[in-house]
Amino acid sequence: MPGTIFTKILSGEIPCHKVYEDDAVLAFLDINPLSAGHTLVIPKEPAETIDRLSAESAAAVGGVLPAIARAVMKATGATAYNILQNNGSAAHQEVMHVHFHIIPKEPGGDGLGIGWKPRASGGDALVRLAQDIRSHLE
Amino acid sequence: MPGTIFTKILSGEIPCHKVYEDDAVLAFLDINPLSAGHTLVIPKEPAETIDRLSAESAAAVGGVLPAIARAVMKATGATAYNILQNNGSAAHQEVMHVHFHIIPKEPGGDGLGIGWKPRASGGDALVRLAQDIRSHLE
Repeated sequence: MPGTIFTKILSGEIPCHKVYEDDAVLAFLDINPLSAGHTLVIPKEPAETIDRLSAESAAAVGGVLPAIARAVMKATGATAYNILQNNGSAAHQEVMHVHFHIIPKEPGGDGLGIGWKPRASGGDALVRLAQDIRSHLE
Repeated sequence: MPGTIFTKILSGEIPCHKVYEDDAVLAFLDINPLSAGHTLVIPKEPAETIDRLSAESAAAVGGVLPAIARAVMKATGATAYNILQNNGSAAHQEVMHVHFHIIPKEPGGDGLGIGWKPRASGGDALVRLAQDIRSHLE
């Protein structure tokens, strides 16, 4: 896998505004924030998308999200926020190294914009789809 | 904490299209999907927002995201997807029990809509903010 800008941040070649680090995880401020406190939380393990990440690294990242979210909220005063993790350029992923965005939602509306258009789903189709997904997890 | 519809799904009072379950986590299809395979992954521990969730439950949820994402992709054929976790009604949270959405992005565009408007950020402000966030993590 070719390196990304996050590889260079992890190696120290490029500096970052670090907020947290442990053996498996690094968190730092996004330098192009959607709102104050916009933070990136990444596994040190290189993986382009979360489906390619080890369960261990994914658990390490997941496990620190509550504490980092609390710290971001305390520092910014935000009371609402989104956590977003994009996989694939069609899904808005720009850096091909797994990252979770923590994005405070500001009272004025700055933060993540969400477009939400649910569609009709037949119950039978959902039954079959759930069976199909389960079969790939067994 | 008052119960939510997810409390009733966890207790079995309300059925769901289950795709995965372990001691700490349940995953099931969203019945109002943005795209085929739209899946919810929730901790069994009741917590309104992820900042109130234990690190253990957050790690358990994070740790199963890779496998569930792989299964959703295999079942649907999707190659790109977003994982979204909303905290607070101002940030689009509708059910007050922590949940991660796995939302396949379809070639035609169905899936999560993302509004992304970065803003200028002074380096000095980021330095101070990173220090402030770190101070809340120490």
